[in-house]
Amino acid sequence: MTRYDAASLRSTLTTLFAENGASPEVAETTARILVEGDLLGHHTHGVKLANGYLKDLKAGHACGDHERLEIHQNSPVAALFDGHYLLGPYLVQRALDHSREAAGAFGIGMVSLKRSHHIACLAAYLQPLVEANLIPLILTSDPAVASVAPFGGLDRVYTPNPLAIGIPGREQPLLIDVSMSTITNGTVGKTRTAGEKLDHPARLTGHGEVSDDPEDYFAEPPGSILPLGELAFGHKGFALGLMVEALTSALSGFGRKDSPEGWGASVMVMVIDPARFGGTESFLDETDHVAKRCLSSRPRDPEKPVRLPGQSGLARRRDYLENGIPLPTDVVDAMREAVADSSLAGTTPFG
Amino acid sequence: MTRYDAASLRSTLTTLFAENGASPEVAETTARILVEGDLLGHHTHGVKLANGYLKDLKAGHACGDHERLEIHQNSPVAALFDGHYLLGPYLVQRALDHSREAAGAFGIGMVSLKRSHHIACLAAYLQPLVEANLIPLILTSDPAVASVAPFGGLDRVYTPNPLAIGIPGREQPLLIDVSMSTITNGTVGKTRTAGEKLDHPARLTGHGEVSDDPEDYFAEPPGSILPLGELAFGHKGFALGLMVEALTSALSGFGRKDSPEGWGASVMVMVIDPARFGGTESFLDETDHVAKRCLSSRPRDPEKPVRLPGQSGLARRRDYLENGIPLPTDVVDAMREAVADSSLAGTTPFG
Repeated sequence: MTRYDAASLRSTLTTLFAENGASPEVAETTARILVEGDLLGHHTHGVKLANGYLKDLKAGHACGDHERLEIHQNSPVAALFDGHYLLGPYLVQRALDHSREAAGAFGIGMVSLKRSHHIACLAAYLQPLVEANLIPLILTSDPAVASVAPFGGLDRVYTPNPLAIGIPGREQPLLIDVSMSTITNGTVGKTRTAGEKLDHPARLTGHGEVSDDPEDYFAEPPGSILPLGELAFGHKGFALGLMVEALTSALSGFGRKDSPEGWGASVMVMVIDPARFGGTESFLDETDHVAKRCLSSRPRDPEKPVRLPGQSGLARRRDYLENGIPLPTDVVDAMREAVADSSLAGTTPFG
Repeated sequence: MTRYDAASLRSTLTTLFAENGASPEVAETTARILVEGDLLGHHTHGVKLANGYLKDLKAGHACGDHERLEIHQNSPVAALFDGHYLLGPYLVQRALDHSREAAGAFGIGMVSLKRSHHIACLAAYLQPLVEANLIPLILTSDPAVASVAPFGGLDRVYTPNPLAIGIPGREQPLLIDVSMSTITNGTVGKTRTAGEKLDHPARLTGHGEVSDDPEDYFAEPPGSILPLGELAFGHKGFALGLMVEALTSALSGFGRKDSPEGWGASVMVMVIDPARFGGTESFLDETDHVAKRCLSSRPRDPEKPVRLPGQSGLARRRDYLENGIPLPTDVVDAMREAVADSSLAGTTPFG
């Protein structure tokens, strides 16, 4: 499988975003975060998204002008960002930088971000903060989309509502990025396109039967995604989904009540500095201690030792930085389409 | 079933704690939070616990002297509490009051609490803050206990690690209190005592088979509790459990690396004021909007309409405050034992 150089991918994408009206820092940040997604192995949330972002920039559904970001600094540690649908990676990175500065002075910084465009792969933002021994936390929901049904219900009300957090550690930091539903909208779509079944019956049909068939999600009445915990413990995933919903849309003041359309996100970003609580050194000692205990657990399947969140992603990242990223065919096709239409046509590995 | 008056229960427990060395505010707060647990229907985490707390006070494993609480104010919004094993409800309430004051001035306040004694029912703390349109958040782990295995592993490493959050709403606030494992240590013990099986196969035997039998948790090699998400999606529950572990023990600087013994807790408390982000009114509007959409979802089972987190608990609370609390037999027995040994013997409904 052909491997693609991360730096070239970044530079290609930066040019494409800039050609479509993105300010230099918006273009660079968005390109970097998308490539970071692929470096960690999240190819559905990496450079494949560029095409859609470019289309939305062209159509005016996404904004590339960094000056449109509106910051309401409501206290030294609490800010509201109105993103005016600027490209999400730029907005989230700005919110992290902003929160990081507050955390440096106060131990915590928090930004509530409304009207962001799509924010790509949450795990892609974590590493630089974790390497500085800080704890970044990102929560998001998309108030324009409903795909998950409340526990006990059949009608789609909210989104998978992921949560990402980075936990600093000396030997093995943890990069956590999980949704509060069994699967994501992306998995449903990808499985359907491939004509396959889901690995697990993680969905409900519109009539309430558990299902592994992505087709009935699109039937009439439409199916839904089950909350994490499924039928037995789904009240927990439902509660956690509502938590993310409240801390993103409700907290930002902009949500489902405003009936937004198109690609968007409500986001909560927080940075915590352990130095202002029990101290950085003992934080790292404790992380290492717990990580070691997990890794030395007898595995259930002798072929599959316990892995920590982010462990495979970080190993992949080291390999891909050195040897290039093995992009799947659908991603290469998406890049081809994005490049074809630009000043770079004929000068990149994608044509 | 006999019903017991909440105010009398509070006053009985306050006397018992005070007689065993608790300062007046420690005795009152602990009594109030325990009764609040029963008012919400969490009888395993209500007044039943008083007996154990009294025993630990007598034995010196729990502290009742409010002056032992040590507060390190590391910034206007970030504090570390060393609880010196004061009764947990008093410490958590102090941490909430402390965070609330910071949130009033800055929009966020956060306390990391180490060396707390047991903290009872997390949901019991939420309502007063939620009624003031604030968002209280409580996370906890017990570094002296290991009952949950990492995803893919067989050895117990950490605890169910619950998270509680209150979401203000005009018509129906949400009181969320969920663990990051399928079930809690309490459920395992209670089911075993009753000689019953679990409702779901939510555990692993020491050999890695899924099990609904609480007995094999105590066998050799010992069984474990599965993370939320079980075998199919347990990597998510595992990641969330590690998140709670890091934000409680690691952040406080005191955890499993310190090999503590006995009843204890590491706790993170945070209070967020929506007024400093998108505004209180639009927060309440959005909560109401999402709540309504959940409640009006077609139910999967026509006999069981969708319920929101905290909805049954709050309904019970209204009933119990008016008509008394129907305490289960095991709780009445525990109260009898606690009272027998005190100056109140012969003067209460428990003897």
